[in-house]
Amino acid sequence: MQLLQSPAMRPLYLSCFSSSRYLATITFSSSSNLLPKSILPTFRTNRGFNSTPSRSRLSIRNCSSISAKPSSELRRQKGSSDSSEPDDKKLRALRQLFSKPAIGIDAYVIPSQDAHQSEFIAECYMRRGFISGFTGSAGTAVVTKDKAALWTDGRYFLQAEKQLNSSWILMRAGNLGVPTASEWLNDVLAPGAKVAIDPFLFSFDAAEELKDDIAKKNHELVYLYDVNLVDEIWKYSRPDPPNAPIRVHELKYAGVDVASKLSSLRSQLAGAGCSAIVVSMLDEIAWLLNLRGGDVPHSPVMYAYLVVTMDDAKLFVDSSKVTPEVLIHLKNAGVELRPYGSILSEIESLALKGTELWLDPSSINAAIVNTYKAAGEKHLEGLRTKGNGKSQNRDVSNGSSGQSWGPARVYRASPISLAKAVKNASELEGMRNAHLRDAAALAQFWTWLEDEIHEGAKLTEVDVSDKLLEFRKKQDGFIDTSFDTISGSGANGAIIHYTPEPGNCSIVDPKKLFLLDSGAQYIDGTTDITRTVHFGEPTAHEKECFTRVLQGHIALDEAVFPGTTVGFVLDAFARSFLWKIGLDYRHGTGHGVGAALNVHEGPQSISFRHGNTTPLQKGMIVSNEPGYYEDHAFGIRIENLLHVKEANTPYRFGGISYLAFEKLTFVPIQNKMVEVSLLSDAEIDWLNDYHSQVWEKVSPLVEGSASQWLWDNTRPLVRQ
Amino acid sequence: MQLLQSPAMRPLYLSCFSSSRYLATITFSSSSNLLPKSILPTFRTNRGFNSTPSRSRLSIRNCSSISAKPSSELRRQKGSSDSSEPDDKKLRALRQLFSKPAIGIDAYVIPSQDAHQSEFIAECYMRRGFISGFTGSAGTAVVTKDKAALWTDGRYFLQAEKQLNSSWILMRAGNLGVPTASEWLNDVLAPGAKVAIDPFLFSFDAAEELKDDIAKKNHELVYLYDVNLVDEIWKYSRPDPPNAPIRVHELKYAGVDVASKLSSLRSQLAGAGCSAIVVSMLDEIAWLLNLRGGDVPHSPVMYAYLVVTMDDAKLFVDSSKVTPEVLIHLKNAGVELRPYGSILSEIESLALKGTELWLDPSSINAAIVNTYKAAGEKHLEGLRTKGNGKSQNRDVSNGSSGQSWGPARVYRASPISLAKAVKNASELEGMRNAHLRDAAALAQFWTWLEDEIHEGAKLTEVDVSDKLLEFRKKQDGFIDTSFDTISGSGANGAIIHYTPEPGNCSIVDPKKLFLLDSGAQYIDGTTDITRTVHFGEPTAHEKECFTRVLQGHIALDEAVFPGTTVGFVLDAFARSFLWKIGLDYRHGTGHGVGAALNVHEGPQSISFRHGNTTPLQKGMIVSNEPGYYEDHAFGIRIENLLHVKEANTPYRFGGISYLAFEKLTFVPIQNKMVEVSLLSDAEIDWLNDYHSQVWEKVSPLVEGSASQWLWDNTRPLVRQ
Repeated sequence: MQLLQSPAMRPLYLSCFSSSRYLATITFSSSSNLLPKSILPTFRTNRGFNSTPSRSRLSIRNCSSISAKPSSELRRQKGSSDSSEPDDKKLRALRQLFSKPAIGIDAYVIPSQDAHQSEFIAECYMRRGFISGFTGSAGTAVVTKDKAALWTDGRYFLQAEKQLNSSWILMRAGNLGVPTASEWLNDVLAPGAKVAIDPFLFSFDAAEELKDDIAKKNHELVYLYDVNLVDEIWKYSRPDPPNAPIRVHELKYAGVDVASKLSSLRSQLAGAGCSAIVVSMLDEIAWLLNLRGGDVPHSPVMYAYLVVTMDDAKLFVDSSKVTPEVLIHLKNAGVELRPYGSILSEIESLALKGTELWLDPSSINAAIVNTYKAAGEKHLEGLRTKGNGKSQNRDVSNGSSGQSWGPARVYRASPISLAKAVKNASELEGMRNAHLRDAAALAQFWTWLEDEIHEGAKLTEVDVSDKLLEFRKKQDGFIDTSFDTISGSGANGAIIHYTPEPGNCSIVDPKKLFLLDSGAQYIDGTTDITRTVHFGEPTAHEKECFTRVLQGHIALDEAVFPGTTVGFVLDAFARSFLWKIGLDYRHGTGHGVGAALNVHEGPQSISFRHGNTTPLQKGMIVSNEPGYYEDHAFGIRIENLLHVKEANTPYRFGGISYLAFEKLTFVPIQNKMVEVSLLSDAEIDWLNDYHSQVWEKVSPLVEGSASQWLWDNTRPLVRQ
Repeated sequence: MQLLQSPAMRPLYLSCFSSSRYLATITFSSSSNLLPKSILPTFRTNRGFNSTPSRSRLSIRNCSSISAKPSSELRRQKGSSDSSEPDDKKLRALRQLFSKPAIGIDAYVIPSQDAHQSEFIAECYMRRGFISGFTGSAGTAVVTKDKAALWTDGRYFLQAEKQLNSSWILMRAGNLGVPTASEWLNDVLAPGAKVAIDPFLFSFDAAEELKDDIAKKNHELVYLYDVNLVDEIWKYSRPDPPNAPIRVHELKYAGVDVASKLSSLRSQLAGAGCSAIVVSMLDEIAWLLNLRGGDVPHSPVMYAYLVVTMDDAKLFVDSSKVTPEVLIHLKNAGVELRPYGSILSEIESLALKGTELWLDPSSINAAIVNTYKAAGEKHLEGLRTKGNGKSQNRDVSNGSSGQSWGPARVYRASPISLAKAVKNASELEGMRNAHLRDAAALAQFWTWLEDEIHEGAKLTEVDVSDKLLEFRKKQDGFIDTSFDTISGSGANGAIIHYTPEPGNCSIVDPKKLFLLDSGAQYIDGTTDITRTVHFGEPTAHEKECFTRVLQGHIALDEAVFPGTTVGFVLDAFARSFLWKIGLDYRHGTGHGVGAALNVHEGPQSISFRHGNTTPLQKGMIVSNEPGYYEDHAFGIRIENLLHVKEANTPYRFGGISYLAFEKLTFVPIQNKMVEVSLLSDAEIDWLNDYHSQVWEKVSPLVEGSASQWLWDNTRPLVRQ
């Protein structure tokens, strides 16, 4: 599955992907920042249900369950949400709130985000979708007293045109002359206006950037802590917050117990001169506490905050999700429970005690940071009046905004991000096992699909996704898909973020290339695999393109590199064969993958963008997914997951480890697509060796026709 | 010839290389800034002879001529300079000046630089060498009232130990616990001390950095504009400034006349909202004015400054160097002459007129920038008192220091740097021709050397360098070597910056690898080539290492890449074959090369460091020089120069040009060193095709035994 890598160290894909679309179509340029600026900063939306009166009244409909459902069903559900209410009526209701005495604003910015920078968010937090009617994953809505505009990028122009009514201006981000949201606000509002946001839905850095941008026209950024204006008008039709029960992620899969993880974290805090940390990324909390949840589709996480001090740890979560087993698990690890909505009062209390927090202003929301800052200043003031200035002038190291506020020590990246990325032996074992079961399901699936197509069945792209899910569901430990399946026949394969919609998708054409990018969440691991096949006879051009993508895939797979190597250094290996004939692809080559966790994780990446300077490390997992896309014709992508292992080199120049990759994915690559004359002997050997491993590892897990299919599809390729 | 690439966009190699040593031995690490911090900032020394009274008294000895001399002779000359005077006597004299009423300082910093950030500098500007006795290319001397310390890097520790007397503390930059010069000053001086520099010898950025660093201890940075304290004590023994006659670089080689170049430059100035530019890099001045000089060894440049406004252009140069022909050439191009020493008064006068200068604070010296700043502020003050604030608050775009000073618009890179790097058809033609004549000289040389060695001659590394020079001198248009030849037998080849010294170098051992890195300046082009050979039977390990270096060389040579590609993206191609067995090399892979100009130029590079983000462009020239070095055993490097050309790809994905390389260098690569079994068929084809081109292009230029040698050494390699 492809991922848009961000130029920033913080995995910005988190703000670029939705539950249904994973790849951003970004204009290629020499610039390292290729995200359409006018939808940046993109902000994730979600706040827990704070104990404000306005919030306690909301809770009628059930949020969609997270248990795996066929693509067809999920899609229909998403499409149907709240479209009964005319959009201009919503806008009118929203604007009426602008002039309420306690509010008094001129504009309101509604981002896509939840409060945790999540890639997949719960339906009740899709406020931008509710207010605008536009359901794409990326977009920012801005409403003034007389205008409403929505920014989205090239992936969603057509969809937004269909979904927005005439009250809305569509801002085609990235197109020439299209202003950013801030530029537009500076243009349409009279100087000195009040622009409001929900501070839970903006990272501190994003809010500061917006504040600075609109300050050029003397606009003021107003933080509405106690009320989300969209929620106010959404009211009774708003889905409930998700409340799936939390489960313990067994130690045999997690490998390290919670007490040890907390102890390591506390050492890092002490080393950095901090005495506490606030964790808001949902996968970091799940990993650290060996818990898994079901609050959002595709990611086994639960909505929560975690505060770890040197002495205690507090999990801020809706207690209805906490089973007795989880309660004991947490108690054993010394973790106390607190209501999700009480996070701000905890932050305030920590600040008033002078606690030095490790905060990442690029991911922690502005509500938390501002609360900490305000209370921290109060604390310092108290010390000053007592004549004790000990805690003053703490250095703010590596803070991305470079500002000094309160007593925090600020670091760019959460220490948990890297700890989570470097897998232990148990996590790796789980990943290997999950991949073999996934491979068995795929062997059964491809056997079925080829049979159906050859018998002339008319299957839609969605039919195919649904059937794949059926096969996966039969595997032990299956929980969910790890993202919405990208199933694209012919030209649809060239749409990098394509996800078929029921009733609006193609029949899988036996005469065209078919691209299938899918993955699953199992109890012990997470998978993500892309294969591109032809059911008939590919053209010479299709074969040449496929073969060059494959050569890039092989070159990256076989790379050996010093242990200090940054991911982007390896990216060109995957492109060089396409480059020889003037071809390329507009996405990165590899993203991190969690162990029974998020299918996209940082901090590492392998990309043509040079902003992410995280070295690859032993134990990390990355995808290897070069591609080639010919508009209106076909798409090719070949994706395996790789584990970064120590290479067994005869020398270790510089006294450092050299690294290499171990394949986790074992599904045949269609030999029919390969133009053998382009391959070197070594490349043919690679392919044959891979297929021999596929047979060896996966054949014990399948039988009957699937076993025959696996045998047929793992035979050695020979030079004609 | 290898080059240390700098992490900064500005080619920092300029501060890391001397006329005799080209490669920095830098510790490999994951950090992108690999320069030993404690000798950074390194500052280049040279000021023209300003019209201050103290300077006009200096001029007795002749500066060494720049015409090409045998390595042996040059070396002896350099070693002998002024070592008669005991160093402590010099220090005593220097310290006496500290307390003179007009001076009154506590410390003086003496860098290696000249006023132009030159790689090769004239002897009269080697002030750090004079005061300390240490003649290595890189180093900074700092003298306080009771201490004297010299910072240099690992290349020079042994040499510095020998050359420094007991008055000096050797600071081994890069070693654990060794302070930087600023840290040391902050440590040894009482707070609030006065630390002085010659502002001509520091770039503005370097001076600001020093100022900020020592301000931590409340030290003040004092700029001594009117006197260089070392010159004061050097006095009558100081060599004269160089005064080689300037010559016109003929249009048939330059390709574009001066008027056209000035016109393009003025368009760029206008586009940037500037009305003038100060050019201080000597190769930029030579290129812009189609002039060549002989003021320093190896680089055909003359000491000068150039100021180009929208209406005129003024060359600040010693008029004794200006021949009648040059005078006419300049007059035709509308360029006026001014004395070299009058640059500051010109800058002052421009500032007082409110001229908006394009200045690069990373290369223009602090004397010029500070003068401009002071006069600019005076100008603004004048405007303010007249009530006309028009020129206030100019935006300072991309200024590396981010400071706002005076009316300048500051840009990081000089626009001439890129214009010079992109060669026109005539420059390329000259480069191609010069390389063929150079190849003929090398064929004759290798024929001679192999004969001598096989007949048992005992030749030193210096003998070999001298003989190579003899062969090159016979070629049409030969002017000079383009750097001191690196001629290393056996273990000496592993010292990346090795230059043999007469009387202190090895006999070329027929049983060991021999590395020869050399180049020449011709009237029409500049060459730089490295070959590594064995005169007997290489070991299997030597062959494996050589072959992997060759595979990297081939991979880079054959690369095709999008026109937006930054050099560092290609670097890994040259290393990947070494990486497979855990080997690597600690230098970059490619540097820019001037056309009949400096052998090292920016702005492009191909390096494992990621700081230089200049995309490679059609018309640029880069070296391709992977290597491998085994301490105390052998060194391997294979270097050709390449021209970046448009690739003739069947597709142009993204609507952009794809680029590839054209080889300029045509000298056999020793087949004997190749382990054929490691090569792919395509790699064998590359080598055979290269040798067939070498024969075709160079055989018409040689005869007799050299022709036979060329034939023998261009036969196809066949798989056993």
